[in-house]
Amino acid sequence: MNIIGVGSTKFSEHWDRGIKELIDEAVKNALKSSSLDIKDIDSLYVANCFGNTINGQGNINALCSDMFGINNSTAINGGDSSGSQAIIQAANSIAARNSKIALVIGVEKMSDLGVNEASSVISQVTDYDYEASQGATLASLYAMITSQHMKEHKTTLGQLGMVSVKNHANAANNDMAQFKFAIAPEDIAKSQMVATPLRVLHSAATGDGCCAVVMANDEIAKKHKEKIKLIGHGTGSDFLAVHEREDITTFNALKYASKVAFEKAKIKPHNISFAELHDVFSISELMSIEDVGFVKKGEAARFVEQGKANIDGEISINPSGGLKGCGHPFAATGVRQAIEVFYQLNNNAGKRQVKNAKYGLTSTLSGTGSTAVVAIFSK
Amino acid sequence: MNIIGVGSTKFSEHWDRGIKELIDEAVKNALKSSSLDIKDIDSLYVANCFGNTINGQGNINALCSDMFGINNSTAINGGDSSGSQAIIQAANSIAARNSKIALVIGVEKMSDLGVNEASSVISQVTDYDYEASQGATLASLYAMITSQHMKEHKTTLGQLGMVSVKNHANAANNDMAQFKFAIAPEDIAKSQMVATPLRVLHSAATGDGCCAVVMANDEIAKKHKEKIKLIGHGTGSDFLAVHEREDITTFNALKYASKVAFEKAKIKPHNISFAELHDVFSISELMSIEDVGFVKKGEAARFVEQGKANIDGEISINPSGGLKGCGHPFAATGVRQAIEVFYQLNNNAGKRQVKNAKYGLTSTLSGTGSTAVVAIFSK
Repeated sequence: MNIIGVGSTKFSEHWDRGIKELIDEAVKNALKSSSLDIKDIDSLYVANCFGNTINGQGNINALCSDMFGINNSTAINGGDSSGSQAIIQAANSIAARNSKIALVIGVEKMSDLGVNEASSVISQVTDYDYEASQGATLASLYAMITSQHMKEHKTTLGQLGMVSVKNHANAANNDMAQFKFAIAPEDIAKSQMVATPLRVLHSAATGDGCCAVVMANDEIAKKHKEKIKLIGHGTGSDFLAVHEREDITTFNALKYASKVAFEKAKIKPHNISFAELHDVFSISELMSIEDVGFVKKGEAARFVEQGKANIDGEISINPSGGLKGCGHPFAATGVRQAIEVFYQLNNNAGKRQVKNAKYGLTSTLSGTGSTAVVAIFSK
Repeated sequence: MNIIGVGSTKFSEHWDRGIKELIDEAVKNALKSSSLDIKDIDSLYVANCFGNTINGQGNINALCSDMFGINNSTAINGGDSSGSQAIIQAANSIAARNSKIALVIGVEKMSDLGVNEASSVISQVTDYDYEASQGATLASLYAMITSQHMKEHKTTLGQLGMVSVKNHANAANNDMAQFKFAIAPEDIAKSQMVATPLRVLHSAATGDGCCAVVMANDEIAKKHKEKIKLIGHGTGSDFLAVHEREDITTFNALKYASKVAFEKAKIKPHNISFAELHDVFSISELMSIEDVGFVKKGEAARFVEQGKANIDGEISINPSGGLKGCGHPFAATGVRQAIEVFYQLNNNAGKRQVKNAKYGLTSTLSGTGSTAVVAIFSK
């Protein structure tokens, strides 16, 4: 299965635009990129988490089908990893010969929420009974995970900060990033506390954005010069609530998903040139580096600190700027990651181009890691 | 692709139970029906519309993965047809060899909403910009559709009532039905007005319920005595808002979905023994009978009136009792329909058994028909 075209809006607080306008822009860009007409599309997968709650709009696949006149549409709502889930469902549909050319859309319009509402809405991706209804927020849960990782693996606040510094440096070269600017290590300790020890500059912000990719079978992809091939993917699960996990410093869902994806792709972690990982908080990038298998448990912090995750490092992590730099409109993120892989593997990533990029990996996590989706692409 | 086991809760107002308890019961019943252990399941598709809004629980696939220890889970949220969408995605996953045995769950826990809240939440499946935000409810939109159908096709209130009378008569023999009792034609005019001319007894009620089916590839299904085979399916789309449609008395999405499904199944509408159609309001059963192609446009009302849609009629429509008799916990409905087909084609439907049933069809609609999913099964 292949991606033959990509498009997106800028991630931002789009106060002056509705969800339809965001979808329209991303889809037009994706069609342009693939040199296809909307009439060539025969199926539609739309990922969206909060349409019901924030925008009053459910069955968002119907909204998109309406806008573009496409039958055969499905909506995915599985938390932060929804965009990645949609890509996999589209790939399944093509493999099952129910589709030849599928359009995958990940969209979220979150800025209409106030700050206090946002925390409570975002908590929908945690466990309601044991976490959200007790007042736990996504940030507070990740704060506990961070503290435990710091205790067990001697990870320092300075090292955590280096994740954000690296990702902002990358985002500074990414036009679609919501936070297109570099930050200095000393900025982090000055930023507002969110949930001890996590500050604003350890945390990805929600926002508005839409990403779209066009997927096609091998026969059609052959005719396209710019493309990437999905050579393996895996989806793993863990306990929904953090307290149920034996070791909260490991994403078991991600370990499983990575194992399956690498088996299917028939390559090893060290073959990966760059990876887009789920840095919703700095700690989740570090744990992802470990749990995908790039380094051993407890070694990610030094890996980042030593610059090995930089664009010119051993394995570039989040060359796009990641969730921290780009922003995190939930269901759009998985699709955004695939777009970055498309740019990188087609040598179109400009100043943030990873040299000799051959294999790119994406990984998204829902909530605190209850679901993980890994996808591996080659040129 | 095959269904090899089915299970459900009773549809009801389950005030004393949470969404997890409902899921647990349905899944246990489905596993028992399939003589499989939970460890045999390798993937999970969960359909749910209102978890975010009503239950504070997003990524409901993670909740289910947690409960049952299953990796490879995906959540579908595409309005009333979500359950049917999930069955198709599971079938795709099996066809794409990403799964051998998949569990599909459709669940909704809606009774925690008050009556006034319910109308506004349900409106999420209509068009927010042009309908819901203007105060239109699902019932008021179907009322307009009903009035237009009555005007154009001389459909009478008496004929509309016969849909409910038939479906309640069938539900009286269905233990899982929320409204397991017969009604008389004269009861309908006495029931409360919902949106002129639609009364309570023309309208399906929301509620709580969970349905689960186990799906497997042909090789595995061979070993199972009780099973049904998915031989064709289609998904169609129409304008999301009613006012945009040229003819509001036709479900264009359903016409398209049926055409595709029949082409794949290589049979014709007259080959169908019975059909589970989306009678969210009586008018939608009549329009569905027409748009699936069982009768010509405008002839469904007489078809029902003459008893041709009865259990012993030409083509039995909603032998289960339909949405009217069983209740309509949104995302559970599409899965419930497949369960009825499983019972009927395996000759296990008891007093509501359709004689010599060979082919069964299911059809769900999202909102006022923006999405339609049709599936055709054989023994």
